[in-house]
Amino acid sequence: MIYLDNASTTKTSESVNRKMLDALEVDYFNPSSLHTPGFLVRQKIEKCRKNILSLLGANGFDLVFTGSATEANNMALSQAIRGKILVGGGEHPSVLEKAKSLKEQGRDVEILPLDENGCVNVDAFKLAMTKDVSFVSVQLVSNETGAINDIAKISKIAKQINPRVIVHSDMVQAFGKIPVKISSVGVDLASISAHKINGPKGIGALVFAKTIKPRPIIFGGGQENGLRSGTENVPQILAFGEAIKNAAENQVQNYNNAAQMREFLLEEFGKNGLKFSVHGNGSPFVLSVSFEGIRGETLMHALEQDEILISTGSACSSKKAGNVTLSAMGAAGDDILGNVRISFGSELLSSEQLKFVANSITKRVNELRK
Amino acid sequence: MIYLDNASTTKTSESVNRKMLDALEVDYFNPSSLHTPGFLVRQKIEKCRKNILSLLGANGFDLVFTGSATEANNMALSQAIRGKILVGGGEHPSVLEKAKSLKEQGRDVEILPLDENGCVNVDAFKLAMTKDVSFVSVQLVSNETGAINDIAKISKIAKQINPRVIVHSDMVQAFGKIPVKISSVGVDLASISAHKINGPKGIGALVFAKTIKPRPIIFGGGQENGLRSGTENVPQILAFGEAIKNAAENQVQNYNNAAQMREFLLEEFGKNGLKFSVHGNGSPFVLSVSFEGIRGETLMHALEQDEILISTGSACSSKKAGNVTLSAMGAAGDDILGNVRISFGSELLSSEQLKFVANSITKRVNELRK
Repeated sequence: MIYLDNASTTKTSESVNRKMLDALEVDYFNPSSLHTPGFLVRQKIEKCRKNILSLLGANGFDLVFTGSATEANNMALSQAIRGKILVGGGEHPSVLEKAKSLKEQGRDVEILPLDENGCVNVDAFKLAMTKDVSFVSVQLVSNETGAINDIAKISKIAKQINPRVIVHSDMVQAFGKIPVKISSVGVDLASISAHKINGPKGIGALVFAKTIKPRPIIFGGGQENGLRSGTENVPQILAFGEAIKNAAENQVQNYNNAAQMREFLLEEFGKNGLKFSVHGNGSPFVLSVSFEGIRGETLMHALEQDEILISTGSACSSKKAGNVTLSAMGAAGDDILGNVRISFGSELLSSEQLKFVANSITKRVNELRK
Repeated sequence: MIYLDNASTTKTSESVNRKMLDALEVDYFNPSSLHTPGFLVRQKIEKCRKNILSLLGANGFDLVFTGSATEANNMALSQAIRGKILVGGGEHPSVLEKAKSLKEQGRDVEILPLDENGCVNVDAFKLAMTKDVSFVSVQLVSNETGAINDIAKISKIAKQINPRVIVHSDMVQAFGKIPVKISSVGVDLASISAHKINGPKGIGALVFAKTIKPRPIIFGGGQENGLRSGTENVPQILAFGEAIKNAAENQVQNYNNAAQMREFLLEEFGKNGLKFSVHGNGSPFVLSVSFEGIRGETLMHALEQDEILISTGSACSSKKAGNVTLSAMGAAGDDILGNVRISFGSELLSSEQLKFVANSITKRVNELRK
């Protein structure tokens, strides 16, 4: 099988699995226990936290482990206590739906339009960014199109207008994939996830500037310095640390691999005389491409017969009708209908494999168009 | 090492580890993906959900997987939309602290006093249970003392006064340990956890009567039927199912083992002429015992030198001063200070091991009293 749905989720690496199994067998004590074995597990978690912050280039930041990046995004938006909230139009549902729930509670929420490349429209942002805006959430890399937002620029504009504004960025599709140093992009909060970078599902984190004291959204025994109660998920925290280490070490190589694979596929499409349009042009890990006159979902299922796995937009949006991001970019109805997402992982596929993929897609699209 | 801190957390069993590793290696696809491999993982989760409900005796119930029992308890209390909330005085911090946060938001919350056995005082409950009470939360088994509440009775009284009241029970320390059939005890909501029954940390569930449509507390892609967004934690969900299967199959044996170990220890204390007082007398898995004139924490650390691991109250309460449960039971200050919790697991310790524990405790207590 050729797996090209890595923006949805990835397979854990062997070293990540080993880390988890080690923790299950050796570090099973409760890190909040007062006895020594519990304390030693706690120390491992704290060491892991420090390593992650260092690998993220998050100088002056701390982080809280969460049960998912969705929880981290929800927690981020819960820091918007008063004032207006601005949210990008192509954000992950965990940002958009949380924003919607805040709006239902009477909060002033504005969704920022996207430009034709899938980025937040900076002119529209400048208009929306008034002094009463207390919170801005814009993803670094789009999960749907790979579009990369200029967060540093957005943050700079925001803070010029309201120095106390909190800027959050969902970096789930960015870290370990494109170069990013959290303390250099002007954000106060950033969300990251393990299972997009060959780590396990069920663990994420909210990274926060030490100048902020985040409010918890889950209450109880006061774990994670009172920020997120519940017995610490030791095996997955340590496995997350391992996944981040691997991703950081291999980021340049992974990026080059993805760029090479994406370029190769597009060239092959061209050689095959296939008509297509590409949405967004940022992270090489995502290829959002539409084939006019067919349905993306039908193509996806047809490719399954050739043992090729791609997706139609994000799994997290699979329950929603249409593609919110492409709509926000102003894509035409046919373009949205015929859209698929091909997303690359850390593994470099061979030219033969990629040719097979390109030829399969060409064959299936031509069949479906008939 | 002799591990007697099983109410805090347990070691995962080998079959649970195997289940997790299998899922990591084979079922890594995103269950919300529209492609077939994703769908097949989704089917496994749904089968697991059904099996768990069946093993819980939860006829007419459904469940939502959460990142912890703490999250499940938080979600339970979030169902109390209006009206007064009654909460047991010995509840887990994830109930008490969430109740506190609701009170801070202006909600009417009353904490129910405990009787000298550590159970909710039923007379006090009858007085507090008025028509405007919309939500009652009382644990089945106390994590601190093992005290067992008569939930069926509490639920019956509550529903006689307000038929629309929602009754929630934290069953984390009950399921797989004492006999319990969720549909027979009159509750609408119940919280369960994996890591107390040799399953992994980082996974819990809120079981709910199908007559209730729970409100989510985490928003996003609409996973878990819209009740808990975030990519499904496949390996831990499947491992949770395995842990529950094992716990259900061995519940009677585990109960008898725990009862035998608890009885044996108390007899040995008596034989050794040790002066002590026991708090609560319900679940045999917990022995909450005080030794006058010493500090529980000092005893705990002294026993570590003999490679015996016990705790002073729950790990989740380790950051709080004093023992909330014992205070609510009206225990004397000395009793609270000198309290330790010895908690048994599914493994039957030998008479030699238990004698060693009893003698160590006797020796250490006598030394400390000097």
